[in-house]
Amino acid sequence: MGGRVVRDISRVEQSVIDGLAHAGVATVHEAQGRIGLLAPHMRPIYPGARIAGSAVTISSPPGDNWMLHVAIEQLRAGDVLVLAPTSPCSDGYFGDLLATSAMARGCRGLVIDAGVRDLRDLQAMGFPVWSKAVSAQGTIKATLGSVNVPIVCAGAAIEAGGDVIVADDDGVCVVRRADAPAVLEAARQREANEESKRQRLAAGELGLDIYDMRGKLEALGLRYE
Amino acid sequence: MGGRVVRDISRVEQSVIDGLAHAGVATVHEAQGRIGLLAPHMRPIYPGARIAGSAVTISSPPGDNWMLHVAIEQLRAGDVLVLAPTSPCSDGYFGDLLATSAMARGCRGLVIDAGVRDLRDLQAMGFPVWSKAVSAQGTIKATLGSVNVPIVCAGAAIEAGGDVIVADDDGVCVVRRADAPAVLEAARQREANEESKRQRLAAGELGLDIYDMRGKLEALGLRYE
Amino acid sequence: MGGRVVRDISRVEQSVIDGLAHAGVATVHEAQGRIGLLAPHMRPIYPGARIAGSAVTISSPPGDNWMLHVAIEQLRAGDVLVLAPTSPCSDGYFGDLLATSAMARGCRGLVIDAGVRDLRDLQAMGFPVWSKAVSAQGTIKATLGSVNVPIVCAGAAIEAGGDVIVADDDGVCVVRRADAPAVLEAARQREANEESKRQRLAAGELGLDIYDMRGKLEALGLRYE
Amino acid sequence: MGGRVVRDISRVEQSVIDGLAHAGVATVHEAQGRIGLLAPHMRPIYPGARIAGSAVTISSPPGDNWMLHVAIEQLRAGDVLVLAPTSPCSDGYFGDLLATSAMARGCRGLVIDAGVRDLRDLQAMGFPVWSKAVSAQGTIKATLGSVNVPIVCAGAAIEAGGDVIVADDDGVCVVRRADAPAVLEAARQREANEESKRQRLAAGELGLDIYDMRGKLEALGLRYE
Amino acid sequence: MGGRVVRDISRVEQSVIDGLAHAGVATVHEAQGRIGLLAPHMRPIYPGARIAGSAVTISSPPGDNWMLHVAIEQLRAGDVLVLAPTSPCSDGYFGDLLATSAMARGCRGLVIDAGVRDLRDLQAMGFPVWSKAVSAQGTIKATLGSVNVPIVCAGAAIEAGGDVIVADDDGVCVVRRADAPAVLEAARQREANEESKRQRLAAGELGLDIYDMRGKLEALGLRYE
Amino acid sequence: MGGRVVRDISRVEQSVIDGLAHAGVATVHEAQGRIGLLAPHMRPIYPGARIAGSAVTISSPPGDNWMLHVAIEQLRAGDVLVLAPTSPCSDGYFGDLLATSAMARGCRGLVIDAGVRDLRDLQAMGFPVWSKAVSAQGTIKATLGSVNVPIVCAGAAIEAGGDVIVADDDGVCVVRRADAPAVLEAARQREANEESKRQRLAAGELGLDIYDMRGKLEALGLRYE
Repeated sequence: MGGRVVRDISRVEQSVIDGLAHAGVATVHEAQGRIGLLAPHMRPIYPGARIAGSAVTISSPPGDNWMLHVAIEQLRAGDVLVLAPTSPCSDGYFGDLLATSAMARGCRGLVIDAGVRDLRDLQAMGFPVWSKAVSAQGTIKATLGSVNVPIVCAGAAIEAGGDVIVADDDGVCVVRRADAPAVLEAARQREANEESKRQRLAAGELGLDIYDMRGKLEALGLRYE
Repeated sequence: MGGRVVRDISRVEQSVIDGLAHAGVATVHEAQGRIGLLAPHMRPIYPGARIAGSAVTISSPPGDNWMLHVAIEQLRAGDVLVLAPTSPCSDGYFGDLLATSAMARGCRGLVIDAGVRDLRDLQAMGFPVWSKAVSAQGTIKATLGSVNVPIVCAGAAIEAGGDVIVADDDGVCVVRRADAPAVLEAARQREANEESKRQRLAAGELGLDIYDMRGKLEALGLRYE
Repeated sequence: MGGRVVRDISRVEQSVIDGLAHAGVATVHEAQGRIGLLAPHMRPIYPGARIAGSAVTISSPPGDNWMLHVAIEQLRAGDVLVLAPTSPCSDGYFGDLLATSAMARGCRGLVIDAGVRDLRDLQAMGFPVWSKAVSAQGTIKATLGSVNVPIVCAGAAIEAGGDVIVADDDGVCVVRRADAPAVLEAARQREANEESKRQRLAAGELGLDIYDMRGKLEALGLRYE
Repeated sequence: MGGRVVRDISRVEQSVIDGLAHAGVATVHEAQGRIGLLAPHMRPIYPGARIAGSAVTISSPPGDNWMLHVAIEQLRAGDVLVLAPTSPCSDGYFGDLLATSAMARGCRGLVIDAGVRDLRDLQAMGFPVWSKAVSAQGTIKATLGSVNVPIVCAGAAIEAGGDVIVADDDGVCVVRRADAPAVLEAARQREANEESKRQRLAAGELGLDIYDMRGKLEALGLRYE
Repeated sequence: MGGRVVRDISRVEQSVIDGLAHAGVATVHEAQGRIGLLAPHMRPIYPGARIAGSAVTISSPPGDNWMLHVAIEQLRAGDVLVLAPTSPCSDGYFGDLLATSAMARGCRGLVIDAGVRDLRDLQAMGFPVWSKAVSAQGTIKATLGSVNVPIVCAGAAIEAGGDVIVADDDGVCVVRRADAPAVLEAARQREANEESKRQRLAAGELGLDIYDMRGKLEALGLRYE
Repeated sequence: MGGRVVRDISRVEQSVIDGLAHAGVATVHEAQGRIGLLAPHMRPIYPGARIAGSAVTISSPPGDNWMLHVAIEQLRAGDVLVLAPTSPCSDGYFGDLLATSAMARGCRGLVIDAGVRDLRDLQAMGFPVWSKAVSAQGTIKATLGSVNVPIVCAGAAIEAGGDVIVADDDGVCVVRRADAPAVLEAARQREANEESKRQRLAAGELGLDIYDMRGKLEALGLRYE
């Protein structure tokens, strides 16, 4: 029932994290075999942000944001806060004061399967959030939760603090800490491969031909009328 | 079953209303003890609007917007229309023509637990709406509803026309007419208090220390590993 | 169970399609008697787009986007892709590569009762999409579907490829191919009629008077207090 | 922010309450002019229960059921517990132990816009519950709420402890304390009226004729083909 | 916008309809190539009913059940009422009086993408309903709709009155009138085929062997660890 | 992207599993510190079933049930099948034929964050299912998934095949394999403790007194009026 704070978490090398941010959620998700995506109800509070960072995970009771203060102390520059309530909740756990504190410690953003508030301030500050809801409903500070423990956030298992979070307009994806370098490599290959496809498609070639699909479609019985 | 229009409603002094608009939903909601928030499904049709005004309430049958015409006659400059259907409905009760009429009478915006349409026009006109849905599905004018009666809108009780509506990117909150001056005073104190906290947090101090939380957390058994 | 591709579809004259795009969803929907609207969960991925085009319909299995490649071959300049999965699905069927290919063939946009990804790229390319979800979850290419067959998309029946799709910030509407010229004519009359109403309302006249509602309201028993 | 317990509430005469229970939700709702119905997500945990009673209202924080213990002390025989969380919550606030305690004080059932658990025990005990969810997720006892204050439960305003709750397989309806005798009278008239209609309809007469609808339909332009 | 009643609809031969009822929704849906299923939010109000019948379709405005009276006049013994509102609605369109009338004309049940009430009476009468919601919220009789026109109900297109509706605990499926005899034949073959499979599976044989899947799985790369 | 089948999983001793089934979901969930509960949308297809068993986990593509056949081969008597689709899906993955096969191998039930069909047969067979949906929509067999790998099912992480699933009318809970004996011991203590409480509450004692709450409530400022 909570009460644990893991202080020492391993973090992936910064260049790998930055590479994953550049690749973006869709490419990273494909590159690691279509795993790790958070549910599509996780939407950015404003468009255009694209980040990656080491997860500092938070397991919190519904309507109680006390552990966010504990988690902020654990942040290092480049980290991303990731909060999962222990039961479904849309309350506004996080606003401009917590964002000020998190930014002061170098935090890149928040991923929260609950609510957030002070949207205008957060956008002005350039602090991105991916959340399930926007809600001015405040929270209390009464019950312990845990920090840097395994959580399930929006349907995705985050095994430990230090897993890499990638987030952009397409949603949020988690990459296991140990897999990050290989996933980045696969993402880069995928991007290179896609670039040549993009040029051919832009020139009017069809995917049916580029991917050699016509024979398979015919074999399965596709009928043109 | 409807059919009542209350013409004379009391309104809060304009300076109080303007003060509440400036404070914004999250601060006002906190300042009045975390009550009065409408459900988080009520979202603005475009970002950045921040308003307050005296509620002119409307209770309407599903798919019938006749009472909006009656309500517009009751508007005074600075008012906000608030519509709750008598059963769940996502139809587009309101569009650019009604907005033109409401603006001609000084209306500051619409809060509607149903649908709205003509989004491009409404944004171009600068007429903000907080709604449950966007839908081009039109409505009929066949059945009576009521104006300036108590309603429940998106889960919040609005006791009477003249209650103050505050709305911004964080959502919508209602303040009882009689409570408005005291809530404004509390909101201002809260803002002043938050400003000093913001500066300390921005300088890197931790909430754990500013709010003196470490002892309580330890007493409850928080373990650092 | 799928496997049909109808190559030859009739298309409405381009000037009619362009007129419907100009009128917009709300006006077109009213003009054709309030039918043909897709469910309000179909939202644009970015604001401001306003299109119309001949539907190239796609019926696809859940999580399988193979038929999009087949459909793109059937596109002519000015067409709109419309995809309905055969059971509810939020996967990201479509991204920047398919959009590149569709744009190369003159496609004006996509309407999909499922998910889409690569939002930043699609907005940068100016390729509008109306969808149920945003999701980076990719799809497979394993099972046949059909192209240019009747589908139900987001609750609206699209009887055949060639029906006209109109889409803007208010949502998406379908107009039967044979009805399009008459609907455009009705839309234009409606717009003209609304313009005069708009001017009177902006000048402060009330809908109660313009539409001559007071007698009917009184007859039904409306009481002013 | 809670902390109030109103001990003395007025209650409607028992014979009126029993009459409302006998009439059932649909008839009572009609008889009072189609107001007071809770949202249709409120479903019974087992079929067949039909109750009415004086509401003992509870406003509780999300995930905190402490006030249920306070409320149970306020119960008199024939009362119904009605709990609304201050923000949306699906946790299981109530189970067999609380039901045992409530039954010992004569409570007739629970209406809760949140979750409930121990379903098998509750059904075995014959303690009916109407809820938003079934969830084994427990709650804490850390924060004050209020008892017998006005609440909004599942979209319906319950103005005070002592309002009458009617609940059966069709859902839940609230009747204002002062209105209860008149509503019962109207309900009985409605039942008598319906009984004669039922016999004529069972004999094969059509509503079109019994309610004299043919002329009105024709006047509005109904066409038979 | 409604106002049409088609009196003469063709109906499938009764023995075919009864055969489809016996086969049940899952088998019929498979037998016709996995099309025609209504969305899974359509649930029976009590378990165990299994019906089929010729659809008498109703298109109704939200919150207006007038057309049900018109539709009941069109019923013949063995028919099923199918109602789709023109925009989403959960109101209780139908209760025990209308059921009495419909049963007097031989109606076998109701499929409604909206709400129903008087559940206890309907179950006692043995009149089955598949609906989106249970709600005591009544409806008005003010606006025309249509009867026996094409509708989309819960995401499925019903092309005309006379299409066959099959409904049981698994949901609701529609079979095109012209396809019904062939679908019944396919359903019977499917049942015969399944019976032999069932016996082999009950005896402990594995689907992997009966359906000869091992080779295909190995070819795709399935690894046992 | 799937393709792994872990054959050898450890299982908890049968007496421990049976003890957990007897304790039920609510007690087990409390006894292990309120973790491991699946989301409340997981509901039983018929009331009254109460089971526990070793999880045989299945990760499947949306709309593809091929891996169920592979998983059934891995079943031993007393196991429970647990299926999570790799993206949200409501299709009916499972029906009476698969249930026949699973029962032939001693399977106690199915937990599936998707749809199920053949409800009448499953209830007649006494094969319980907890699911997100009921749907006759069939699935294909085209793509590999995995068996006995870690999955997230309805928001709960199941770390490995062999974790213990407990399911009854209150929902579904997972217990880590290694924790099962300790959780059973805690559950039994909890039950014993609750029994004495139940008797005191039934005799009319109040929780306020049994749990010694009055002082704490007063200290927090609870006011009786």
